Amino acid sequence: MIEDTSGPGTVRPGGRTARVREAVLRAAGDALVERGFGGVDLAEVARRAGVGKTTVYRRWGTVPGLVADMLAEMAESSQPRADTGSFAADLAALAALIRETLTDERQGPLFKAVIATATGDAGTAAALHRFYRTRIEEWSPCVDRAVDRGEVPEGTDAAEVIRFLSAPLYYRLLASGDPLDAGTAQRAAAATAAAAREGVFVTAR
Amino acid sequence: MIEDTSGPGTVRPGGRTARVREAVLRAAGDALVERGFGGVDLAEVARRAGVGKTTVYRRWGTVPGLVADMLAEMAESSQPRADTGSFAADLAALAALIRETLTDERQGPLFKAVIATATGDAGTAAALHRFYRTRIEEWSPCVDRAVDRGEVPEGTDAAEVIRFLSAPLYYRLLASGDPLDAGTAQRAAAATAAAAREGVFVTAR
Repeated sequence: MIEDTSGPGTVRPGGRTARVREAVLRAAGDALVERGFGGVDLAEVARRAGVGKTTVYRRWGTVPGLVADMLAEMAESSQPRADTGSFAADLAALAALIRETLTDERQGPLFKAVIATATGDAGTAAALHRFYRTRIEEWSPCVDRAVDRGEVPEGTDAAEVIRFLSAPLYYRLLASGDPLDAGTAQRAAAATAAAAREGVFVTAR
Repeated sequence: MIEDTSGPGTVRPGGRTARVREAVLRAAGDALVERGFGGVDLAEVARRAGVGKTTVYRRWGTVPGLVADMLAEMAESSQPRADTGSFAADLAALAALIRETLTDERQGPLFKAVIATATGDAGTAAALHRFYRTRIEEWSPCVDRAVDRGEVPEGTDAAEVIRFLSAPLYYRLLASGDPLDAGTAQRAAAATAAAAREGVFVTAR
């Protein structure tokens, strides 16, 4: 029942265990998007994933455990940082990547559902915050290299730069409901670059 | 059963109708914060508000109707725009006001609960988006006056400036979970001002 979605000739690390995880997390994500946190049921997830119920209960235990593992898996999936040689272009590439994720037909609703779940469940909130810390750490070297190149001042807080870059897109997705158009991503990059150059994110003066 | 929370000598517009609305919306907000959207029950809200069940059903009809009116009431509550005479100081005052709201013991959880509800309910989402449009319109004159004073370029999109000012605080509240400290509000104001001065928000070039 588990389809192998990897391309021909690729090697899947972990074999069957990895395939089970992928199928279960995909089924859990589908249920979360379709019916919200309250509508996710472990037995139903197992059925949809084509996996034994006992496996799902033993490995993930609870719905929050399943959502936490989904976020861990999203953090593990490679979203390599940009490396264009210029600070402004790196930020533009990252903002475009965030926009692409949040407007993706599956990922957008999944992020909304997980964030909604996190408002009422401390375990999911902790997993969500870990997810952003991982992403921020992964992308921070863009800023550190801009410091090395002298494009932004010494002492610029790389994590805060990445947070400010992301924020305008999340604000539209979650709060104001305005469209996540390409212009928003470009403005997020340009605004963050302008502020960084002016030293707004310098914390250790 | 309804307490009059207005100060001595103040006149409450609408009298009993306004007091009923206030009590019902407060009870609905409490229920939403305590138990989430799925846990709000009209009969229970009526009981907690000390109001007849029929009144609540007739006037608000459904839980989404109640949440939509709560957002309309939040939009109506006066949150006057800053008018300090300087663009940077106006933005700093507005960012401090947003931070104050989102870190408020009652308002913070209420915003989180309403935003979570909006991810799964189109009516609540529409009411939420109206709320932000109202706030953005109310605060936009700060930007228009900065244009008049020559502090930011002609053609600066006032609404987008307000969105960018708000975004870093909402991002921490909803996504990354980092604290909404005073420094974040100050950086949101300084970053938005720097970007606006550089023309990042000019749409009609």
